[in-house]
Amino acid sequence: MTLPIRKLDSTEPDFLAQLDAVLAFDTVEDAAIDQAAAHILAEVKRRGDDAVLEFTNQFDRLAADRVSTLEIAQAELHAALENLSPVRRDALQQAADRVRSYHERQKQECGSAGFTYTEADGSVLGQKVTPLDRVGIYVPGGKAAYPSSVLMNAIPARVAGVSEIIMVVPTPAGVKNQLVLAAAAIAGVDRVFTIGGAQAVGALAYGTATIPQVDKIVGPGNAYVAAAKRRVFGTVGIDMIAGPSEILVICDGSTDPDWIAMDLFSQAEHDELAQSILLCPDAAYLVAVEASINRLLADMPRKDVIATSLTNRGALVKVRDMEEACAIANRIAAEHLEISAQDPQRWADRIRHAGAMFLGRFSSEALGDYCAGPNHVLPTSRTARFSSPLGVYDFQKRSSIIHVSAAGAHTLGKIAAELAYGEGLQAHARSAEMRFR
Amino acid sequence: MTLPIRKLDSTEPDFLAQLDAVLAFDTVEDAAIDQAAAHILAEVKRRGDDAVLEFTNQFDRLAADRVSTLEIAQAELHAALENLSPVRRDALQQAADRVRSYHERQKQECGSAGFTYTEADGSVLGQKVTPLDRVGIYVPGGKAAYPSSVLMNAIPARVAGVSEIIMVVPTPAGVKNQLVLAAAAIAGVDRVFTIGGAQAVGALAYGTATIPQVDKIVGPGNAYVAAAKRRVFGTVGIDMIAGPSEILVICDGSTDPDWIAMDLFSQAEHDELAQSILLCPDAAYLVAVEASINRLLADMPRKDVIATSLTNRGALVKVRDMEEACAIANRIAAEHLEISAQDPQRWADRIRHAGAMFLGRFSSEALGDYCAGPNHVLPTSRTARFSSPLGVYDFQKRSSIIHVSAAGAHTLGKIAAELAYGEGLQAHARSAEMRFR
Repeated sequence: MTLPIRKLDSTEPDFLAQLDAVLAFDTVEDAAIDQAAAHILAEVKRRGDDAVLEFTNQFDRLAADRVSTLEIAQAELHAALENLSPVRRDALQQAADRVRSYHERQKQECGSAGFTYTEADGSVLGQKVTPLDRVGIYVPGGKAAYPSSVLMNAIPARVAGVSEIIMVVPTPAGVKNQLVLAAAAIAGVDRVFTIGGAQAVGALAYGTATIPQVDKIVGPGNAYVAAAKRRVFGTVGIDMIAGPSEILVICDGSTDPDWIAMDLFSQAEHDELAQSILLCPDAAYLVAVEASINRLLADMPRKDVIATSLTNRGALVKVRDMEEACAIANRIAAEHLEISAQDPQRWADRIRHAGAMFLGRFSSEALGDYCAGPNHVLPTSRTARFSSPLGVYDFQKRSSIIHVSAAGAHTLGKIAAELAYGEGLQAHARSAEMRFR
Repeated sequence: MTLPIRKLDSTEPDFLAQLDAVLAFDTVEDAAIDQAAAHILAEVKRRGDDAVLEFTNQFDRLAADRVSTLEIAQAELHAALENLSPVRRDALQQAADRVRSYHERQKQECGSAGFTYTEADGSVLGQKVTPLDRVGIYVPGGKAAYPSSVLMNAIPARVAGVSEIIMVVPTPAGVKNQLVLAAAAIAGVDRVFTIGGAQAVGALAYGTATIPQVDKIVGPGNAYVAAAKRRVFGTVGIDMIAGPSEILVICDGSTDPDWIAMDLFSQAEHDELAQSILLCPDAAYLVAVEASINRLLADMPRKDVIATSLTNRGALVKVRDMEEACAIANRIAAEHLEISAQDPQRWADRIRHAGAMFLGRFSSEALGDYCAGPNHVLPTSRTARFSSPLGVYDFQKRSSIIHVSAAGAHTLGKIAAELAYGEGLQAHARSAEMRFR
């Protein structure tokens, strides 16, 4: 089997246009889906539990008679954990421990304590950091139900100090994913409801008699969930709307080509829209990786998905040198960037835009997906230019502190009054002046 | 003149329902505005400069023959600064210096340096922090053209290390606000274009031959601008969509009632939808503040706006005690919270949700609007439950660092492979296993 993978060469005059064409991915804004989501949200806002129950029974083919029966008790979550094989249970626990440990470090290093400082005139300025009160985590049902995502979404919230974590996960036809329930138990999720779709987003955003209103909703979902999250943004916080997953590998040609081929597969197997790209200055190495791809593919249980993804969205790119590879990587701003090279830090120092960087030949992306510690919820579709991995900071917010002394009210008041008059806001000016006149 | 300001009492049985009714503010989603914005964005995306020029000439009543003539040269910005009165120029410079100083402290305290740590087996984990490459700042023209907003949006971007700051400001009928241009000079804005509306948002989001594509767009605008920002979210980052401005004052009854009345005015004068609420346990003090309001109002140049705002959206609320006032403040999650009381820190410690806290009787909100140092771009409409003041962190993003040692690839690989098999992702598992077998 020989896959027709796209080959690009950075010395070709229209290389950048070709690259941009490979990267182009238009989130199809489906008006019908958006309208359906809007309708469901409006019903849930207006009729609460009744609407949630009707949509859930309809879309998930259930026959529940009230929303409270859709809650999964803590005992059932813990039973799911107890019933795992010891090996799998240990793996899940170790992954959770490592994710928690990384995020605790992140909390400690990222100014979560806030700050204050006192000026010469006695005025105090600062910033107070507080966790969100209550957070909702959306976990997809069906084929994309990943227990690792439960850990990656819930643990940073817990580390941030969020008081209550509500998880929603649809169970079409009543089928529960035991590994997902076990992950909820390990991550310390407070309550779990088996609801999904736009109705779950609405329930979390507006609250119902049974389902508590949250302050932020995180986690991936299908097109209806994404449309609903966009619509409730502002009423609650949301995380990024995720696009297809991506890996960009920069390799200097010194890594076993089978390893790189498998890394490209590991992204491509997610779904047919996933994107795997390899940049390398060594033409012979690109040929070797292609040979590995064609040899290894047949053994992959998900070979059809991998083949479609690599054919439609993959690329093997010959670059002039590693410097150019880094410049191209900054243009791509990939979700996952592997730098599989000697002295990878040298090249990492040149990278400005990437969701996560995997340095050195032993750092396969799969380790980061599950258990290295950093979050696997990462910015896709070039949004690493302006956004960050999910982290403790997504479950905290800041408040400014301004405590002006009598002396400060005099000096600051004169400046503020002058500028307020300049903007035509006389009450602002008078409010400042009253404090020093 | 006696304003019919709403009075609430927290001991009334339906108090919370009454309070929620006062707070309720539905952002009207105007389908016609949204469609118009969508059309403008699509035209700018497709036709670039030509579309920007046509819409600008049409909406701002100009007769420009190409977009490049809409750029304001640095010399003109600096001339605007030179031409200010010395007093006003000094005030603007001092405000800028203080805002810069606060945000530099914020950068230093908030983990902007990133971190790495090495595990026992030699694996390195961490987080790299980088500034955005290029940012767009939207500055409204017309009545809401505030030079202070130029400082508050541009300075944190500059402190974060953003390489290039592009400002857009519409100039209807060609009228330029000299104070806004002077603020751009002081803040170090790199380029200024006199364009506005959805066409400016589109130009910044997609780039044109003349206007560079940015990575994030911040700053307030009218309903068309807000609709356009929502639509380009994902292509570029955006800040929050701001609602009407709000002040909540908690007073223990020990502050000159005229000061508090003027603080309520200073919010109300912004626009008729602005909201000013006072919480106090002392009934006599509430009467005194009301008397101050009725006495001071006549002298206010913007008295009509103030009267409408206070009548329709204001409230004087009698609470049981200061503890209850703090609980109510957490429910309101106000943009601006003044705690005008003895020992304000005691009460501030109980506040979980507020955009900015102004502590003590000398800390009028007006000082924070202009020159105290913290940002005046703050979360409105209860979004302080989950979001933060604009800050240096809004112009930076993080990348995770994962550098696994050979030993780490063994221990982590076994965990990852076990979980990957559990999720049915065999290429993930094989990618991990290849590194230790």
